[in-house]
Amino acid sequence: MPIYLHDIPLSTAIERLNSALAEAGLDKPLQTETIPLDVHALGRVLAAPIWAKISSPHYHASAMDGFAIRAHETNGALQTRPISLNYGPQTEYVDTGDPLPAWANAVIPIEDVEPLGEDGQPSETPRRPALIRVRAAVPPWSHVRPMGEDMVATQLVLPAGHVLRPVDLGAIAGCGHDSVEVAIPPRVAILPTGTELVPIGHPPEEGDIIEYNSLVLAAQVEEWGGEARRYPIIPDEYQAISARVREAAQAHDLILLNAGSSAGSEDYSARVVEELGQLLVHGVAVRPGHPVILGLINAGDRKVPIIGVPGYPVSTALTGEIFVEPLLARWMGRSPRQPVEVDADLTRKITSPAGDDDYLRVTVGQVGERTLAAPLSRGSGVITSLVRADGIVVVPRGSQGYPAGERVKVRLYRPPSEIQKTIFAIGSHDLTLDILAQFLTGHDRRLASANVGSLGGLVSLRRGEAHLAGAHLLDPESGQYNLPYVDQYLPDQPVLVMALVGRTQGLFLPKGNPKDIHGLSDLKREDILYVNRQRGAGTRLLLDYHLGQAGIDPEEVAGYEREEYTHLTAAAAVASGRADCGLGIEAAAHALDLDFIPLFNERYDLIIPKIHAESQLLAPLLTILEDPAFSRTIAQRPGYDVEVMGTVIGEL
Amino acid sequence: MPIYLHDIPLSTAIERLNSALAEAGLDKPLQTETIPLDVHALGRVLAAPIWAKISSPHYHASAMDGFAIRAHETNGALQTRPISLNYGPQTEYVDTGDPLPAWANAVIPIEDVEPLGEDGQPSETPRRPALIRVRAAVPPWSHVRPMGEDMVATQLVLPAGHVLRPVDLGAIAGCGHDSVEVAIPPRVAILPTGTELVPIGHPPEEGDIIEYNSLVLAAQVEEWGGEARRYPIIPDEYQAISARVREAAQAHDLILLNAGSSAGSEDYSARVVEELGQLLVHGVAVRPGHPVILGLINAGDRKVPIIGVPGYPVSTALTGEIFVEPLLARWMGRSPRQPVEVDADLTRKITSPAGDDDYLRVTVGQVGERTLAAPLSRGSGVITSLVRADGIVVVPRGSQGYPAGERVKVRLYRPPSEIQKTIFAIGSHDLTLDILAQFLTGHDRRLASANVGSLGGLVSLRRGEAHLAGAHLLDPESGQYNLPYVDQYLPDQPVLVMALVGRTQGLFLPKGNPKDIHGLSDLKREDILYVNRQRGAGTRLLLDYHLGQAGIDPEEVAGYEREEYTHLTAAAAVASGRADCGLGIEAAAHALDLDFIPLFNERYDLIIPKIHAESQLLAPLLTILEDPAFSRTIAQRPGYDVEVMGTVIGEL
Repeated sequence: MPIYLHDIPLSTAIERLNSALAEAGLDKPLQTETIPLDVHALGRVLAAPIWAKISSPHYHASAMDGFAIRAHETNGALQTRPISLNYGPQTEYVDTGDPLPAWANAVIPIEDVEPLGEDGQPSETPRRPALIRVRAAVPPWSHVRPMGEDMVATQLVLPAGHVLRPVDLGAIAGCGHDSVEVAIPPRVAILPTGTELVPIGHPPEEGDIIEYNSLVLAAQVEEWGGEARRYPIIPDEYQAISARVREAAQAHDLILLNAGSSAGSEDYSARVVEELGQLLVHGVAVRPGHPVILGLINAGDRKVPIIGVPGYPVSTALTGEIFVEPLLARWMGRSPRQPVEVDADLTRKITSPAGDDDYLRVTVGQVGERTLAAPLSRGSGVITSLVRADGIVVVPRGSQGYPAGERVKVRLYRPPSEIQKTIFAIGSHDLTLDILAQFLTGHDRRLASANVGSLGGLVSLRRGEAHLAGAHLLDPESGQYNLPYVDQYLPDQPVLVMALVGRTQGLFLPKGNPKDIHGLSDLKREDILYVNRQRGAGTRLLLDYHLGQAGIDPEEVAGYEREEYTHLTAAAAVASGRADCGLGIEAAAHALDLDFIPLFNERYDLIIPKIHAESQLLAPLLTILEDPAFSRTIAQRPGYDVEVMGTVIGEL
Repeated sequence: MPIYLHDIPLSTAIERLNSALAEAGLDKPLQTETIPLDVHALGRVLAAPIWAKISSPHYHASAMDGFAIRAHETNGALQTRPISLNYGPQTEYVDTGDPLPAWANAVIPIEDVEPLGEDGQPSETPRRPALIRVRAAVPPWSHVRPMGEDMVATQLVLPAGHVLRPVDLGAIAGCGHDSVEVAIPPRVAILPTGTELVPIGHPPEEGDIIEYNSLVLAAQVEEWGGEARRYPIIPDEYQAISARVREAAQAHDLILLNAGSSAGSEDYSARVVEELGQLLVHGVAVRPGHPVILGLINAGDRKVPIIGVPGYPVSTALTGEIFVEPLLARWMGRSPRQPVEVDADLTRKITSPAGDDDYLRVTVGQVGERTLAAPLSRGSGVITSLVRADGIVVVPRGSQGYPAGERVKVRLYRPPSEIQKTIFAIGSHDLTLDILAQFLTGHDRRLASANVGSLGGLVSLRRGEAHLAGAHLLDPESGQYNLPYVDQYLPDQPVLVMALVGRTQGLFLPKGNPKDIHGLSDLKREDILYVNRQRGAGTRLLLDYHLGQAGIDPEEVAGYEREEYTHLTAAAAVASGRADCGLGIEAAAHALDLDFIPLFNERYDLIIPKIHAESQLLAPLLTILEDPAFSRTIAQRPGYDVEVMGTVIGEL
């Protein structure tokens, strides 16, 4: 049976799902249960409103330690003309929370009276005196918590659909309940499929993919209040998948069938759904993630919704957010989660397919007065783009993208307070930044770094789009690092140039140096494929400078046009055999267990506009540069010289 | 031993605690453990950074279903001059995720080629053809996910101190880990003390207090990542408390000793702390909650921090937020939680003691362009003030308060998106509003209602501080309800006046009518104590009107000056014996099982400025007024006539 994958708009897909759910009676809250009122009720969703069973307080309570009295008996009392009240008939000691005696209508705090003994002297037993002397009239109901001050029996305390927080549990107990009726967590079956999958913990061979989508989905379901069951990996066999879906439908409210939702040779999901029930949607115009399947499985007289979740991890996670969360919310009777939104300016141009709702991952930071959103990798296989994301910008269907500087709405993944603590670093990449990021978390700061090369970093600083830039720009004329470039690119900004590290640049080679490479001159050889860094990278400038010195034309270097954006990915290109050699720092070679020919020593600086260098936000960063624990950690990595760390190279 | 309670500023108290913790070596993360990478890792705090063990992908992977090729072999292919590649030596079929053959460096998606058979016709086995025909040159590395595209071995994936989210678990698995090192939840002992306390579920007698503070504290601790143990209630006996504290110190990282922290006759907490260890602080200048105790208990060679938590429930919960959360955060190595803040305008004047940091609970709503913060009850015994609060305004030490309209910072308890969904109702109170609130949650709206009486509601509307007001204002001259008042108070605003319900007003009487009351004329009797409603309440106007008709002078009515703010609290005053009778609606009498003498029928309207009546925000409210389920629910309550519900009384 041919399955046709055809993308429809997200809103249409949701409508189609909703009307099928309504028809099947699955558009309302599912079952409820009554549970004891204890800490396990935290986070559960109220299935029925809480009406107060008793008032709180349920009697008139003293609000202070003091003496219960009849207010009118103090009328006329003055500082100079006190009134005495006899213990017993006229006054009685009460602690905070004690019931007011039936005859009393006010309390005087103990510190405002003089408890006296029979002899008229201060009483030896001030809480059981013979009489008290009062020097001011007391209004009725002073220092009394009247019955019902907090809650009056029968009033609404909390509505159904409310997610229980700690104080709610207190209020529910206070108005006389000892149990609560809550939504039962919807049961969600998660079925990973794919012959190429191996479970977490199995060292993967080439071609194996570590199956973690089911973990991400299960964790999402649990976070949203559902109960997840992860099934073992199912191979790409129609019968096996079909049998497992039928089994899962028996005891679950929702099935998530991960991958196989596209139209490839081993994509059976749509066919399984069609044969076991009703295929509602195959293909939704969202990016990433469009081969989504929505359907219903017949399980006896029940119908069980099934979602075919696309296999790329970013698609998987976003499908969870878009389709699973609202469904769980509805089944538990709570509102769907709504992210905090902020306005931010895009740091670069974005193009987007006009036919799709495009979910763009961004990091967000506050630089001066501006809130900025820097787009992250758009690959649907790049789960770190979600890990690093501070939020999502949805480029709606109908739009082909936005120019740089466009004001966009960001749906935040992190609280705005974390955005305020984010240091935006842009420019050249160095492994030291990872370690700096780690140290900064200990100082309540977060480092978001984007790798655009040294020159790109200076351009960003000029546009006011970063707090600092890492750079290692060799000026061929003066032999100086960075300062001439800062002069040229940031003529109008007071800037601090501070050394971070000295480091060794050289050639990455496969272990054992199979092609017998000895220096830059080998790059001319026809059998050598080089991997380059991108234009504007300091390492690219370094190569060009030394190629020039050696009289080598870049045209002669095979692979010169192949660009990587970081030392590590350039090293990875060599490690994987995609290139025979590349230029980069020793630490990267070491990290990927490559051979390394050291060629040049260079200095890597932090370029920090003064306005940021003197800010509260960056203060911890400057502290860390003086922390011996930090320099020790860096010095342990090969190819780093920490002698210069923290030295002010220039103030411009 | 005399214990002296002396309030010190919050910042001083925190400094004193911190330096004692530092001295005891308790200012850093506590123990860690390594746990398997599964859903139980969700929400845990990383105790060590995650460095990638392997790259992801860990090989070059096809990004599409298609044919692996050598890119240069397609050079020169054109639409009109295709190039053929032989299956086997020149091309090979790959599914998405398959490793690229070692000789290949690009993939052509299957939909972009023509798979042909031996005979040059379209192949019967398109994934295993004899050859493929290509009509465009393919750049190298097209449709390939290069090794390390997502993560490169050795790079930093997540820093220590990070709280694990679903996507993080995926990334950690993807870079080769199958376990994570996380902080062990700090163990917190919660010791409720008080002879007057009864556990949840025990029907309380007069003087009994339902012990729910330990539940609130335990839920807070769990929510913040700790592990809470609630001990049974300890009576107010020095030895019993001391013994329990010593026991708890053995197996816990923190002790919360609830109540007994003041300086009353049965307040032993400070003495216990002083005798078992070190009393650091007794009294902190925060409101509510100042009798806080901070100390350290000696437990062998360990020191265990102890916090004496004040007993009023609002004080308890705020003490948790101020002292316990940051301590748990530090012990787990994560950042303390920081609330989202918004700017809002106070709806009324606030006075505050200059010596204290004053934690004011507010509801927050967006009315037109303005974000408003309406102060809630300030009683430290009123836990519903925290339940209803959308956030906290801290009036800092040194300030004596703010005028109405002051722009203040609110630390939100709810996401800002919920604030956007909040309908601000102000004015007269009716039980129908509770039921309306319940129905609105089903429409993704929230009703925040403040009871200031009918006239107060109109004043708020005039100031643009509410979306609607409930009112039942009888005009003595015309006999009309509400319209003459709307004319007078809102002359410049287009307003919709819509009937909510008709209802019966009458006298609340204790069951059995012991004082033999038959009508308003009995209010003149000297043995009758009346409970009144506040100035501006419709019920107050109704009373005044009918007293005037009957020729009764308010001076003759004992208790006329005693004001309650709602029908229910007025009824509670009668139920508790604090008054002999009061005027109010039948439903309130019924709720508190009182006798009731029906006197007058009246109409209760909603007054809605047109600009809000036509808004998206209020649309669901107007829908509910037409929902038979809603009117049925109201009609079931005694004393309500739903005939008029939804009728437009006037458009002014």
